[in-house]
Parts: sequence; C-alpha cells; structure tokens
Amino acid sequence: MATAGKVIQCKAAVAWEPNKPLVIEEIEVAPPQADEVRIKIVATAVCHTDLYHLFEGMPKDGFPAVLGHEAAGIVESVGPEVTEFQPGDKVIPLFLAQCKECRFCKSPKTNQCELGAMVGKESRFTCKGKKVLQFAGTSTFSEYIVIHQIAVAKIDPAAPLDKVCLIGCGICTGYGAAVNTAKVEPGSTCAVFGLGAVGLAAVMGCKAAGAKRIIAVDLNPDKAEKAKVLGATDFVNPKDHNKPIHEVLAGMTNGGVDYSVECVGNVEVMRSALESCLPAWGVSVIVGWTEMFDIKIRPPHLISGRTWKGSMFGGFKGKDGVSEMVKAYLDKKLQLEEFITHNMTLDQINDAIELMKQGKCVRVVMSVSPE
Amino acid sequence: MATAGKVIQCKAAVAWEPNKPLVIEEIEVAPPQADEVRIKIVATAVCHTDLYHLFEGMPKDGFPAVLGHEAAGIVESVGPEVTEFQPGDKVIPLFLAQCKECRFCKSPKTNQCELGAMVGKESRFTCKGKKVLQFAGTSTFSEYIVIHQIAVAKIDPAAPLDKVCLIGCGICTGYGAAVNTAKVEPGSTCAVFGLGAVGLAAVMGCKAAGAKRIIAVDLNPDKAEKAKVLGATDFVNPKDHNKPIHEVLAGMTNGGVDYSVECVGNVEVMRSALESCLPAWGVSVIVGWTEMFDIKIRPPHLISGRTWKGSMFGGFKGKDGVSEMVKAYLDKKLQLEEFITHNMTLDQINDAIELMKQGKCVRVVMSVSPE
Repeated sequence: MATAGKVIQCKAAVAWEPNKPLVIEEIEVAPPQADEVRIKIVATAVCHTDLYHLFEGMPKDGFPAVLGHEAAGIVESVGPEVTEFQPGDKVIPLFLAQCKECRFCKSPKTNQCELGAMVGKESRFTCKGKKVLQFAGTSTFSEYIVIHQIAVAKIDPAAPLDKVCLIGCGICTGYGAAVNTAKVEPGSTCAVFGLGAVGLAAVMGCKAAGAKRIIAVDLNPDKAEKAKVLGATDFVNPKDHNKPIHEVLAGMTNGGVDYSVECVGNVEVMRSALESCLPAWGVSVIVGWTEMFDIKIRPPHLISGRTWKGSMFGGFKGKDGVSEMVKAYLDKKLQLEEFITHNMTLDQINDAIELMKQGKCVRVVMSVSPE
Repeated sequence: MATAGKVIQCKAAVAWEPNKPLVIEEIEVAPPQADEVRIKIVATAVCHTDLYHLFEGMPKDGFPAVLGHEAAGIVESVGPEVTEFQPGDKVIPLFLAQCKECRFCKSPKTNQCELGAMVGKESRFTCKGKKVLQFAGTSTFSEYIVIHQIAVAKIDPAAPLDKVCLIGCGICTGYGAAVNTAKVEPGSTCAVFGLGAVGLAAVMGCKAAGAKRIIAVDLNPDKAEKAKVLGATDFVNPKDHNKPIHEVLAGMTNGGVDYSVECVGNVEVMRSALESCLPAWGVSVIVGWTEMFDIKIRPPHLISGRTWKGSMFGGFKGKDGVSEMVKAYLDKKLQLEEFITHNMTLDQINDAIELMKQGKCVRVVMSVSPE
C-alpha cells in the first residue's frame, strides 16, 4: 500500500486527562516495527473498561492516551518478521495476546500469555509532539493502530466488521465466563448480575450451555426485555425486594443457584453473587473489573463448598477464542445484532460515552475508517 | 448389653462456660431414640475447632456443652429403626453426616448432607439436672454419646481405635483438602500454610497426589522436621523474610505455586495463600475455620485466573471417606502414628488443651473408656 513504511496522519479520539471529554485530534501513527502489524480500524464499540480508565481508575501515568479495545479492522501493513498477516487481512485486535509458545499459552488451564504481558508497552502514537499512550495495548478509538502480532486475531473475510467488533471484548468476556470459566452444565440454574453487554452475553452463554433457569438481576427494569430475548427465564430487580438479593434468589431456587456471574464490577455485588450460590457446590465467577476496593467475605462462605473464580476475556485464549466466536456468529449460533443499540461515527465518541454512563445503550458501534 | 435401654451414668469433660477449664463431671446419657446409636468412646483427640468454640467463637447459647469431635468407639446399643449398626461395631462418629438419600448426598459435587443439617440438634446429655449441649453433633469428650445413625461410620474391626480416631477430623480434613478439593496434580508445586495436624495431613495429601515440590509454611521452626517427614520438600518461616510471604513463594516458584492450602484459620493467611498461587491458574483452598472476621481481597486476584475454594472434612463424604481412609491406614498407605505426639487420659483434658494452645503437640490422643 502507498502508506506502508510511512508515518500515517489520521484521526483519533485522545483522552488528554481523566474525567474530561475525549478530543478528536490529528495524530501520527508510526510504521510497524519487527513483529508488529498496523491496522486500519473499521469499527469500534465502547466498553465500560474504557470508562473505568477515564472516570474511575484514572491512573496518574495513564494519560494522554487513546482508549478503545473492542474493534475490528483491516491490516494496512506489517513489520519485519511478521508472517501470519498480510495487508488486507480482516482482523480483531486483542487486549489479551496469545503467543502460542509460552508456558501459559501451552497450558489448557489459562488464557494468560506470559509474552503478551511484556510486549506492546511502547506506543507508536504521537500528537502535537507528545507521546500518546496505547490503552490496553489496542487503542481502537483511532483510524490506525500498531500492535504486536501476538495480539491480533485473523478472522474470516466474510465477517462483517461492524458486527464482529463486539467479539473483541464484551461478547467473549460474558459468554465465556459462563461457558468456559463457570462451565455451566445442562439443566442447571444460573444468576447473572448486571445486564450490560457483558452480562447479556453471559445470559446467552448460560443458555448455550443448556441452563434450564437463568435469573437476570439488574437495578434497571428496562434491561429485562433484552435479557429475556437472549435467554433469561426470570428478571429480578433488587429494588423490588426488602431483603438481600441472595435471600431472594435462595427462596426462588431451593437454597441458591448452581452458578452466578458478576458483570458489574462492584465489590458488594461480587459478594452477593457468591452468597447467591448454593453453599454445597455453587460456583461464582467475577467478571466485572475494579481494582480500587477490597471484596469482603466470611470464610464459611467458601468452606461450605462454594468455588469462586474470576474470568478475563471469558477464559478464551485470544486468537483461538476470537476465531471460534466469529465462526459461531457466521454459523448463526451466536447473536450480535441484539447487542447493537446504536450506530455512530468516531466523531460522536463523547455521545457514545454518555449513553454508556447513563445505561441507555447496550453497545454503540462506531464507524471509524471506511472499509 | 446390660446398659441397653437405660440411662448411663458416666464421666465427661463439661465446658460450663467459655474461656474456662473443662470440668470432669458425672453426666447422664439417655438411651438412643429412633435412628440413634449410643457409642462408647474409646479414644478421642483434641482439635483446634474444640478450642475455637471454647476460646474464640464462644457462642452465647453454646454452653454448657461437651466438646470433642475426633474420636473412635464401639456401639453400645441402638435405637429403633437402626439396621446398619449392632452393639460391638467399631465406629467413628461424624460431625458431617451422610444420609445417602438427599440431593447433596446423591451428588458427587459436595460432601454436605441436607438431612444431616437438620438432625442431631437435641442433646441426650444432662448433668446436675441441666441439659448439656452436644458440640458438632458428636461431643466425644464423654465416655458415652448418642448420635444419629447417619452421622456414624462403621469401620474395619481390625482398626486400632487409638490411632484411627484421628480420621474423624484432622487427617481427612487436611489430606482431602489437597486430594479432593484442590485436586493436586502429579508434578505440581504446592504450599501448605500452618503445620498443625491438618496442615501436616495436607502435606501428606499433596505428596500422595504426586506433587513434586511441597513448601511448608509456619511461624514455628519446630514444625519443619515433622513436615519433612510427611513429604515437605521446603520449609519457609515468614519471620525469616522481610517481604510478604507470597512474594517469597513467587520468587521460589517462578511466579507462584499451583496449589495452596490454608490450615490456620486466619483471614490474613487466607489472603496470603491466595496471593501465593500462580495468577494464571493457581487454586487456593481454605481449610482453617473462622467466622469472626472478613477476608479481604482485590478482584484482580481472581480475575487473573485463580480459583478459590473452601474445604470441609477434606471434601470426603462422611461415611465413605472414613471407610476409605481407615482402609488406607490398614493398607499402610496412610501415616497416623507420626501425628500422635502425646497419649493421655480424659482426666488430663485441660493439659491436652494447654499443649494445643502452645503449639507443643501435633495430636494428643486421650484414652476415654477401656476397649
């Protein structure tokens, strides 16, 4: 391509500082170095983790940055040593790499990647003479990004990028938490706390795993309908009850659910989700991210027989999981359209963030570069 | 027997109130009612859970009581509807029943028993005209006890009661936490926190499961030798290091152990044990009991890939587990003698408790009634 080997000038939404609107800027994206791939981002969605970085986590050394990590695009050019990708390949960038060589990648027990934790720290972005950081190693609120080849998944050329972009984070995270991490069994009873895109994907995962009862829990009654479309059998709003939600669920399920999945990122809800499981064998999975507060539980909550796990990217190994889920979508075994409530362009990023903050959308998909 | 159907007058160590020495008293033990068995206790050991009730938990409505729950004895008589037991049977009383009929007993996922949680609440003891409570449904610091038949395990008549009494709690609890709950794999790396009888049994369990490295952790250097006899490859005393123990273990094991087992009952140690596991796939098991304090962790400790479980009676179903472990001992596949550091009589119960408090014993086995 004409741009290969050259710095690309393009648009990106820059987070100059915490708690402020993003600013659409012209940035420079350096050419890919060894083992790196430069990707033209076609579609990106906004995820709560982007908002977490901007409004909650707000790490001192985390700005200026380009946020965004749930996207799909097309390879523009590749650096030396890259053999897996060619310009024109359709891809999904990964915040969780898969090198396929390290002890973690070689084990079926984890989706972490030891090499992935070491590479991709250095940003290829500059704006107005300043380095701009890459968020989550991806930074998809930009027309172009540079990323290490172990953090890129090649996908079927038939995949519509404005749909499968959701597979880059929320869909895998929720669906996999149910299927891979909790390992929901056929005929079981499940509860999903929090009905954002991740929670709704967890509901879809519970259904795919054959759960016979899926109780969706959210403070917002508007979430009930979508949850039922995706497989929930019951909707419970904790505000409608004057006893703790774990007691409500215990009453509905003869002592507690077999599996619970927390998709809020709130430590009180994490405890409720654990306590909502049957003490004898309940499995509770934490999906929602927060690192600012402690979760507090009493030891007997576990000693009675519960298991507590966490799940990142739904336990999917990055490249393998994305390929598998894109295939499932193309085979019509996975719903994505139900999650897309709004379509916008990158210029409207602050409107999209506002919709997310107010809980008025499931996913906003933004068109970034033309395909 | 001459005593069948009659009230038995016998000796027991009564805990009249919290934080006070036990008192050897003459008590009355009523005959067994329907589904109940009266057992002559031949040997009992003291476990930290007895001390916990007396000195820490101290429930207001938990006294007067007869403590003790790790014992072996001989059936003296049986009540109506009891078909599984006959006078003369060698047995181990169970604090965790197994009715074999409820949904929990029928599931391989738990060792809890729903019926067990409902029966055996009413004591058959009186002393000086007062009801005396049964602790843990067992109360083995008494020459005779009455217990529901679902909470009694029949054992091989060849079993020496002054040894296999330990199978009634500590040995199964620690050994099973490694083998059944953590499911330690051959070639793995383990850490065991706390080297009382339960922790030493966990070391033995890790070894039986084929762990290649077993790191025993205790503040008391006197515990190292016994741990090594039972299979520990390393001993670490947190006092010898000026950084947190989970960092010490991470340094020794390329990032963390595969499995950790907490056998102290201290919420800070529970957190350390969790953090000592490899983030990618570490499994940590809580065995030590406390219900007085919260454990506090950060969500990323789990989201990275760890699993947190608790274990009661080592995940063994009561009757099945005791039979299996007595057989393992008779087949010389399980060590018990190494755990018995002192032999005493029931009269010396307060001396035994003092040795436990000071950490100067592993297990004190007390002779109660002559066999």
